[in-house]
Amino acid sequence: MVDKNGGDNLPILSKEEVSKYLNEVFPQASAYNINIDEISVGKAIVSMVTKTAHLRPGNTVSGPTIFALADLALYVLILAHIGKVALAVTTNININFLNKPKAGILTAHTSFLKKGKRLIVCNVEIFSEDTMIAHATGTYSVPAK
Amino acid sequence: MVDKNGGDNLPILSKEEVSKYLNEVFPQASAYNINIDEISVGKAIVSMVTKTAHLRPGNTVSGPTIFALADLALYVLILAHIGKVALAVTTNININFLNKPKAGILTAHTSFLKKGKRLIVCNVEIFSEDTMIAHATGTYSVPAK
Amino acid sequence: MVDKNGGDNLPILSKEEVSKYLNEVFPQASAYNINIDEISVGKAIVSMVTKTAHLRPGNTVSGPTIFALADLALYVLILAHIGKVALAVTTNININFLNKPKAGILTAHTSFLKKGKRLIVCNVEIFSEDTMIAHATGTYSVPAK
Amino acid sequence: MVDKNGGDNLPILSKEEVSKYLNEVFPQASAYNINIDEISVGKAIVSMVTKTAHLRPGNTVSGPTIFALADLALYVLILAHIGKVALAVTTNININFLNKPKAGILTAHTSFLKKGKRLIVCNVEIFSEDTMIAHATGTYSVPAK
Repeated sequence: MVDKNGGDNLPILSKEEVSKYLNEVFPQASAYNINIDEISVGKAIVSMVTKTAHLRPGNTVSGPTIFALADLALYVLILAHIGKVALAVTTNININFLNKPKAGILTAHTSFLKKGKRLIVCNVEIFSEDTMIAHATGTYSVPAK
Repeated sequence: MVDKNGGDNLPILSKEEVSKYLNEVFPQASAYNINIDEISVGKAIVSMVTKTAHLRPGNTVSGPTIFALADLALYVLILAHIGKVALAVTTNININFLNKPKAGILTAHTSFLKKGKRLIVCNVEIFSEDTMIAHATGTYSVPAK
Repeated sequence: MVDKNGGDNLPILSKEEVSKYLNEVFPQASAYNINIDEISVGKAIVSMVTKTAHLRPGNTVSGPTIFALADLALYVLILAHIGKVALAVTTNININFLNKPKAGILTAHTSFLKKGKRLIVCNVEIFSEDTMIAHATGTYSVPAK
Repeated sequence: MVDKNGGDNLPILSKEEVSKYLNEVFPQASAYNINIDEISVGKAIVSMVTKTAHLRPGNTVSGPTIFALADLALYVLILAHIGKVALAVTTNININFLNKPKAGILTAHTSFLKKGKRLIVCNVEIFSEDTMIAHATGTYSVPAK
C-alpha cells in the first residue's frame, strides 16, 4: 500500500507491548485464547485456539467467535501502528464466511487498506489450516486529538 | 415486504419452540443471557442482558457481543420462519456500529429484506434504551433439499 | 431515530434547492433521469426513470444503475440536512441486490441511521413497483470545519 | 486460495472471448471505455479510461463510476472462470472508497475468495496510478443447472 500520509507504516509497539496492554484493558480477552504471532510493517498476525464454548454442531466454529477474532486482530494491527493515545473506534465490519472452519487454531492475517488520520480501513483474512474460512474489512474512526 | 415467493411470512415455530431448540443445539447460548421477546409475521425481537465479560473500558459493550446478538437474533428469525429442517448458513454480515451502548439490556429487532428459496437477506436494528446502537444486514444460504 | 446530537433532523434545504444545486455541480446527473420526490424530517425519496443504457438482457436494470440511484439518493438526503458547506465524502456502501427490477421507475427511500458530526450512516431501500429490489447502507465522512 | 471444490482455478475463456461476449450482451459496456488487461489463474485485471461524464468537481471520479468498474471487473473474472452457461447474479457488493482517484486510467485487480458451486465471493482492488483508491468484495449466486 502506498501510504498517502507519507508515513512508512512502521509499527510503534512490539507484540509484547500490545499483548501486555490488551491484558490490562481487556482482561476478558484471555477467554479467547488469543496469541499475537507477528507485528510487522503494516501487518499483524493473530491466532486463536478454539475452545468448546466456541463450537457449533458439526465441530465447526461459531460465526461470533470468528468475528471476535477478526475484530481483535484488527484492533491489534491498529494499536501496534498508532499507539495507545488515540483509541480508534470500530464503525463498520463487513464479514464474509467462506468455508467451515475446523476446531483448533484459527489465524488472522491483517493489513491496512488505508491508514488515514481520521479513518482507517483494514483487511483481514482468517485461515483454518490452509483454507481461508472468512474475509473481513473493517473501518475505524480515529478521534481528534 | 412483498414476499416474492407468494408466502405470507407466517412463522411456523413459536418462541417457546425456538428457545427449546436453541438450548439443545447451542448449549453455550445461555452464556449470552438471550431472551426471545417476540416472534411475529416476518419479524423477531431478541434481547440480551449484558454481563461483565461483555463490557469494555468505559462501561460500554464490546463489538463482538453486539455482533453475537445480531447473529443470534437473525438466526431466531430464520429458524422461526423456515423451521429446523433446512439449516441456513450465514454467508455475510455487514454491521455498522452507530452509538456506544450502555451496559444492561440490548434489544434486536429483525425482519426479512428477502426470503428467497436459496438466499435469505435480513435486517437487524439493535437498541440500547431508545438509541439505535448498531445496524446490520445478514445473508443466509439455504441448502438444497 | 433518536438524534444523539440533540437536533431535530429538520431539513435545511428544500427539494427545489437541492435539485438546483445538483444540476450545477453534477450536470451529468441529468443523464440518470433523477427526480427528488420528497424531502422531509430525516428522510428523502428520490426516483429514477430507467433508460435503455441502464438495462441488461432480460429487460432488467444493471447493478451499477441501481448503485448510482442509491448513492445519489443518499447524497440528496445528506445535502438537504447538512447543507452545501461541508461536503460529505462517501466512505462505504454495502448493497444487497434482492430481486430483479423491471425497466421503468425505481424509487429510493432514504433515512438516517446516525447523523453524527464526523460520520453519517444512512439506510436506503429501492423499490420497483411494490417490490424492494435493493437495500443499501452508506457511510459518509463529514470534513472538519 | 485453496479451491475447496478441487478445481485448479484455470480460466476457461480467453480475454478475447470474454471481450467479444461482453460486447454482444452489454453493448453499453463500451460507454465505460473498458479494457480487459489480463485473465490468468484465479485472477483478472480490467482497466477503464475515465470520461468527462464520470468526473465530479475537483477532477475526481464519481463513486458510481468506480462501482461500475468493480462490478464489471468481477463479472469478467467470473465469466472467464465459469463460462457463459450459468449466469451468475450479483447478490452483494461492499465497497470502501479509500482515496480520491484522479481522472485517467483506473485499474481493477480481481481474485476469488471462494469459488463455490452455488456462491462465489471475490475481491477487487482498484488503483489510480500507484494508489489503491477503492476496495470491494462481491458475492454472486450461481443458478442451479
